[in-house]
Amino acid sequence: MGAPSMRVRTVIIEETAETESGGTTVVRRQVRPPRRSWRSYLIGRPLATADAPHQTIGKAVGLAVFASDALSSTAYATQEILLVLAAAGTLAFGYAFPIALAIVVLLAVVTLSYEQTIHAYPNGGGAYIVARDNLGELPAQTAGAALLTDYVLTVSVSVSAGVAQIVSAAPQLDAYRVPIAIGFVILIMMVNLRGVKESGATFAVPTYFFVAVMLLTVGVGLYRYAVGSLGIVPDPPAMESHVAAAGLGWFLLLHAFSNGTTALTGVEAISNGITAFREPRSRNAGITLVWMSLILGTLFLAITFLATHAQVVPSDSGETVISQLARVVYGGRGALWLATLGATTVILIMAANTAFADFPRLGALIAADGFLPRQLTYRGSRLVYSRGILMLSLLAMVLIAAFRASVSALIPLYAIGVFMSFSLSQFGMARRWRKIGRLAPGAEVRERGSVLRHDGGWRRKMIVNGLGAVCTVVVMLMFAVTKFRDGAWIVIVVLPALVAVFYTIHRHYRQLAARLSLDRYGAPPRIARQRVIVAISGVHRGTLAALQYARSLSHDVTAVHVSLDDDEAARLRRKWDAWGDGVRLVIVESPYRLLVEPLLDYIEEIARHRQPNETITIVVPQFVPGRWWQNLLHTQTAWMLRVALLFKPGIVITDVPYQVE
Amino acid sequence: MGAPSMRVRTVIIEETAETESGGTTVVRRQVRPPRRSWRSYLIGRPLATADAPHQTIGKAVGLAVFASDALSSTAYATQEILLVLAAAGTLAFGYAFPIALAIVVLLAVVTLSYEQTIHAYPNGGGAYIVARDNLGELPAQTAGAALLTDYVLTVSVSVSAGVAQIVSAAPQLDAYRVPIAIGFVILIMMVNLRGVKESGATFAVPTYFFVAVMLLTVGVGLYRYAVGSLGIVPDPPAMESHVAAAGLGWFLLLHAFSNGTTALTGVEAISNGITAFREPRSRNAGITLVWMSLILGTLFLAITFLATHAQVVPSDSGETVISQLARVVYGGRGALWLATLGATTVILIMAANTAFADFPRLGALIAADGFLPRQLTYRGSRLVYSRGILMLSLLAMVLIAAFRASVSALIPLYAIGVFMSFSLSQFGMARRWRKIGRLAPGAEVRERGSVLRHDGGWRRKMIVNGLGAVCTVVVMLMFAVTKFRDGAWIVIVVLPALVAVFYTIHRHYRQLAARLSLDRYGAPPRIARQRVIVAISGVHRGTLAALQYARSLSHDVTAVHVSLDDDEAARLRRKWDAWGDGVRLVIVESPYRLLVEPLLDYIEEIARHRQPNETITIVVPQFVPGRWWQNLLHTQTAWMLRVALLFKPGIVITDVPYQVE
Repeated sequence: MGAPSMRVRTVIIEETAETESGGTTVVRRQVRPPRRSWRSYLIGRPLATADAPHQTIGKAVGLAVFASDALSSTAYATQEILLVLAAAGTLAFGYAFPIALAIVVLLAVVTLSYEQTIHAYPNGGGAYIVARDNLGELPAQTAGAALLTDYVLTVSVSVSAGVAQIVSAAPQLDAYRVPIAIGFVILIMMVNLRGVKESGATFAVPTYFFVAVMLLTVGVGLYRYAVGSLGIVPDPPAMESHVAAAGLGWFLLLHAFSNGTTALTGVEAISNGITAFREPRSRNAGITLVWMSLILGTLFLAITFLATHAQVVPSDSGETVISQLARVVYGGRGALWLATLGATTVILIMAANTAFADFPRLGALIAADGFLPRQLTYRGSRLVYSRGILMLSLLAMVLIAAFRASVSALIPLYAIGVFMSFSLSQFGMARRWRKIGRLAPGAEVRERGSVLRHDGGWRRKMIVNGLGAVCTVVVMLMFAVTKFRDGAWIVIVVLPALVAVFYTIHRHYRQLAARLSLDRYGAPPRIARQRVIVAISGVHRGTLAALQYARSLSHDVTAVHVSLDDDEAARLRRKWDAWGDGVRLVIVESPYRLLVEPLLDYIEEIARHRQPNETITIVVPQFVPGRWWQNLLHTQTAWMLRVALLFKPGIVITDVPYQVE
Repeated sequence: MGAPSMRVRTVIIEETAETESGGTTVVRRQVRPPRRSWRSYLIGRPLATADAPHQTIGKAVGLAVFASDALSSTAYATQEILLVLAAAGTLAFGYAFPIALAIVVLLAVVTLSYEQTIHAYPNGGGAYIVARDNLGELPAQTAGAALLTDYVLTVSVSVSAGVAQIVSAAPQLDAYRVPIAIGFVILIMMVNLRGVKESGATFAVPTYFFVAVMLLTVGVGLYRYAVGSLGIVPDPPAMESHVAAAGLGWFLLLHAFSNGTTALTGVEAISNGITAFREPRSRNAGITLVWMSLILGTLFLAITFLATHAQVVPSDSGETVISQLARVVYGGRGALWLATLGATTVILIMAANTAFADFPRLGALIAADGFLPRQLTYRGSRLVYSRGILMLSLLAMVLIAAFRASVSALIPLYAIGVFMSFSLSQFGMARRWRKIGRLAPGAEVRERGSVLRHDGGWRRKMIVNGLGAVCTVVVMLMFAVTKFRDGAWIVIVVLPALVAVFYTIHRHYRQLAARLSLDRYGAPPRIARQRVIVAISGVHRGTLAALQYARSLSHDVTAVHVSLDDDEAARLRRKWDAWGDGVRLVIVESPYRLLVEPLLDYIEEIARHRQPNETITIVVPQFVPGRWWQNLLHTQTAWMLRVALLFKPGIVITDVPYQVE
């Protein structure tokens, strides 16, 4: 009764085609699924490329799929405004609502702006693509770097904020914030490595549950405020402030505003995923975007309004604003309070999950353009960009550990990237409209992958996108200034560095392509002569097999032995007389007891005097032991030789393995 | 004014010799010294094999070179006796001197025993060689394992004891015992990697300084005791005991005796190094051994006598016995007290240093017999067995860190190995005398590398060695029992495990030699046909160079491409039509997006259907980037393929490197 065999019979479909030049090309399909390994237990059986999903979704599911990132920010945006205002005392909290109003105005501008982008780019108009098409390479790579940075922060901030909700419900877990957060990241990573079947339900249930619960909470809260029974938070946590105590001035207000704009993160999600929508997809996506912004704005305004009137006390290390608010609204730590915290936690984890879809996809896009390692474009056994997922998880975990899973500590780094990509995207769109304005009516121009079509409303649209661009640039500069010392400087340093890395990678790939290119390439040089050198450590079956092989390659074969010991060399010569079959043997004495270097010197000398069109092949008998640990019992001369010889042009290294079972 | 060039011109001496079979053998000597690297700055310029020293030493220098290990144990042996007796209260200290007397009697037996060994083995008679020649393989390997274990402990104990003297002089360093001890190990390691020129002075000065200072200390002490002015230790440290409080019984006394026998460690050193002595070397070495034992016994007895009468208090974590004794003798913390501590520290470090000579040498001996990795027999650029030195340092540092540089914690592990090797050596000698007793007068028999000569006194000598063997076996068993729970069990577990590892290694080498042997080997199979497979990832200059190379090997060439993407495969086919020169191309579609596995499957299938005497050569174009980090930008398919193919018999892997600068 052994375990059932995992080995599946190989089925090969072979198809032969005559090619134009008369040569034969054979196409074979390897139908055998890969062997099962420890990985399949963790992430599931491999999926074939043809299994990639091609389903589309409607508006209601689309809202659920794309809104979690944006909506989840209501869980911390209000709190982050209050944490700054707290520096000037509780009286400053009166400014929270006006600040929230200003942010909602900004949200409206950005939403309008993106609505236009969605119609202009029905195949997906993320900031990277829009910037690449309309502004050029450098702005595109800047947007790419900014977005990648921000996706990492989305994961760190959302998971940390989710853990903060859990700690509000169960304060005894306070000491374990970092391990819990890292546990969540690993969980999300595993789920994503398995590959998320984008079934609507998985997303719809938690998102709509969150929306429903939050609408109920703010609804009940506003009702109780209206009838005068709201009251204030009983037994609030000790007040903390995000920044050093300061007078109430413009700087503090702008700082609070900057912190609050984190509410806008995630608004761009729909513009990246338009292709997922059912036709007419631009229209469906646009309507979904507007709905999302409406819900987001409403919730954010209502939460801020209620928080200030219920005298919620902001605390980074204690109870969250959401928890205090739910306690006031529902009159204590009941089931509805717990439901609010639960829904908030889940939506925050979902938000982190969207970054796991976006980061690897954008990484693959940038890698396909040659600005990131090509490996990021390969999809793993489960059809996901596994390398991107692993990279994102690692970076997010490092950030969480470094900032002790504190939302307030992470916030200064956050949103700069998003707003930079907002600006670049809107500027790109504005520029696009100006170009369209120059087209004759009915004209159509294909430019860098996208189609420019005459549009009567180009001037109005240009103004909308231009306004969006100006607003987001102003906000971004405000970030950089007000949050510079708190951590924004890190992003300001990292972004250009990242762009520089992108360009270094790109230069490498470009140079490589040029060197390998067959344009203006005559023909590869003919190989007229083969000179074969067999490196031998002794005379035994392994070396004789290598010698046989060498002789099948060429008549010009030389065996070389590096000798550390005269007696041993003499023994080797005697054995060679018997078994060497007349092949010339060179014994290189090595007075400094080195093995590889004298051989390299010898090969170099041969190479210096070689004839034109002569190739030098080094045959290395490589002993392959039956068990891995037995490798420790042998000097790995073959490998050392290989690494050293790889860098010498015109020298080919051949391993003749000799397996000993 | 640049740095002077390190590059030395290559001088090659070449000599051609006609061999008997008519073939030509060329012997070349690579006279160019190896390039300087970062290592030469640390350990000095490389030395040629011919530079190995061949000088011999006299008795006085010989004593200095070989005695430090043995003499240094007087620094802790008394203390370790007292630490056990302390468990039964200070009254038990009266037993320390009788115990020391018993140990000195044991020392006398062992010395006589080894004196005979030295005369019987003028070429060096370490326990490993004596056991191998006279008892067989298993006892020899047991002795080898025991000695190697004990050399590691010699380093750990001696360095820890040396640091204890330093801490006695400067108690504020107490918290830094472990880093100081590890620093010393690294220092000794570096000195030994440079290679110790065995100049007498380096050893003579500290050894004779120690002997002189200690003789002065015990001399003054005994004089003051005789005139009644010795007094007792003022302000002693808090008494500690090595073991749990217990009544004074046989077990405690035997335990104290066991601890005290650490004084005998190092007595075997001279028997290992007889060849270093001037002729008549056996006589010189024997006399030196007797002198060493006399000094050792005298110092040990005197220190123990004075320590008990001056009411020295044993302490593992506080002031050492030597320090307290010197304070009493010299009446305080003066220059002579400091000189005593200094001399003791230096001799202890020297003792550790001798293990650095013995461990690698014994390791090389065992490796040459095929029971340890062969690499241990290679001497490094400075003519020392660098790998053995590194291994010893690493193990000693691990022990020091694990046991917090505490001598008392390490002592239970110590000396078991030494006494096991003592016993095996003496048993071997006793057996040897019995064999000699059977020889006719004047007869001479060569047996396993040593010569047995008729000797009239064989019966007396057999009794001396037999007595030595019995005594040391009894002591060893006493160790195992009394110190079992304190840590001796570790050694009792490690020793058989180590011997098992030795035999596993040996079996591997033996099997390998049998498989590679040319005895009863007809001739290597002729290679009649070459089938060449070129793995290509695209069509570019690199793959075309590899294709050219493949065609120079055989007419039967097939190019194989693993395709993840149909469009890309179509492009490749078109390019192949133009550049493939009619070579058959096989495209393997990989629906699971794997690169290596489908290629392996294809190769395996070809291999299954191959003809007799057909060799399959896989040509892999390997792209070699100009800088190491650029490797991160490429999938290392060539390496993965190589690792996977190494294990398949009859398949040869050829790298055609393509360097891009």
